[in-house]
Amino acid sequence: LSSTVTKTVVVEGVLDANDALAQANREKFDRAGNFVINMMSSPGAGKTTLLERTLERLGDRIRIGVMEGDVQTTLDADRLERFNIPIAQVNTDPGFGGECHLDANMVRYGLPGLPLDDIDVLIIENVGNLVCPAEFKVGEDSRVMVFSVTEGEDKPLKYPLMFRSVELVLINKSDLLPHLEVDLDALNRNLDAVNPGVERILLSARTGEGVDEWCSWLESHARSGAVPLVK
Amino acid sequence: LSSTVTKTVVVEGVLDANDALAQANREKFDRAGNFVINMMSSPGAGKTTLLERTLERLGDRIRIGVMEGDVQTTLDADRLERFNIPIAQVNTDPGFGGECHLDANMVRYGLPGLPLDDIDVLIIENVGNLVCPAEFKVGEDSRVMVFSVTEGEDKPLKYPLMFRSVELVLINKSDLLPHLEVDLDALNRNLDAVNPGVERILLSARTGEGVDEWCSWLESHARSGAVPLVK
Repeated sequence: LSSTVTKTVVVEGVLDANDALAQANREKFDRAGNFVINMMSSPGAGKTTLLERTLERLGDRIRIGVMEGDVQTTLDADRLERFNIPIAQVNTDPGFGGECHLDANMVRYGLPGLPLDDIDVLIIENVGNLVCPAEFKVGEDSRVMVFSVTEGEDKPLKYPLMFRSVELVLINKSDLLPHLEVDLDALNRNLDAVNPGVERILLSARTGEGVDEWCSWLESHARSGAVPLVK
Repeated sequence: LSSTVTKTVVVEGVLDANDALAQANREKFDRAGNFVINMMSSPGAGKTTLLERTLERLGDRIRIGVMEGDVQTTLDADRLERFNIPIAQVNTDPGFGGECHLDANMVRYGLPGLPLDDIDVLIIENVGNLVCPAEFKVGEDSRVMVFSVTEGEDKPLKYPLMFRSVELVLINKSDLLPHLEVDLDALNRNLDAVNPGVERILLSARTGEGVDEWCSWLESHARSGAVPLVK
């Protein structure tokens, strides 16, 4: 039991240190006038495909930069290369012990690779994971999650910290709804149970349904400037 | 930087302690003659639905017990209640700090709720996560992962530790293949790249395709007795 107690204390210390580094990141973002989104999801929920659709639509109007967080590989960054935007890759393995999330220190390491003064919106694509990414602030203005309808309507109840920590839920892969037994009404009830009234957009990064609405959200938030994350 | 170093050392200490507790669990399983599977996946890949199909087919022939690992809720255990089998629920929040995986100590806490002497096969349904569950042995004989085709063919490369740690990959939701652009050949190549020749079964817990093959695997492994996990 004593090892459990020790571990808990250390984890709290780690979170304190993380908050301090997140604040330092935040000050850099504020000085550069960046609107920063921490984008989170399960593995394969469609974050990168949605970024592709977003860059196709907004690439000419907003200067978007991306930080890609992955345990290994640069596969996601490679997919975005054709847009010729600033991209920084942060791999949590091996440099950071194969961590299952980005923390403020990892983001700090990735920042020198980005020309912050030439970026309006920085999207940080976190490691695919519904648990730990929600525990670590990285200096973001806003948290957005991509949720695939294939994951089932019960997930807000099973991973409440994640769903509670975000201000927008992008309910992705709507094109698959006719082929699934997922209950959208129950999903909405479960979202409201853990994060009452949280904004949500039903979309399909594949067919484009709802993507304009997401881009409008992004554009209006970017223009209203950096608003501190209260949650 | 010093906080990172401290953390690494502590994490290694935690893994040492975990291995010792996993060994203790393992001795209990061996004494009771249990074949123990650590079942892992992303959130919503279909572990619980597959367990339902498995219990429908094998419930009369093998005495199956289940340990459900979740951050919160007993939703999965509730779905299995109708089978009238031994089920133990382990919630990692709040008792274990909301951990994103089961470790050997959590499994140890759940064991008194299970009549091990009356169980042939114990299936431990881990927390939905493609990273950390792979780092923690819990005393299992075998590791099986459920992978949903909706997650995309690149995932073995992005989460290699998980795919490398298992001896069977159940490629689930095959019924959705006609509605996806996923490349099965590439998925197979990526599986072989990180875990050459790993056994794999294409199945659909929804339609039943491939489920008999999985049940045969399970039954033959259960009968051949507890074989220590080498990996």
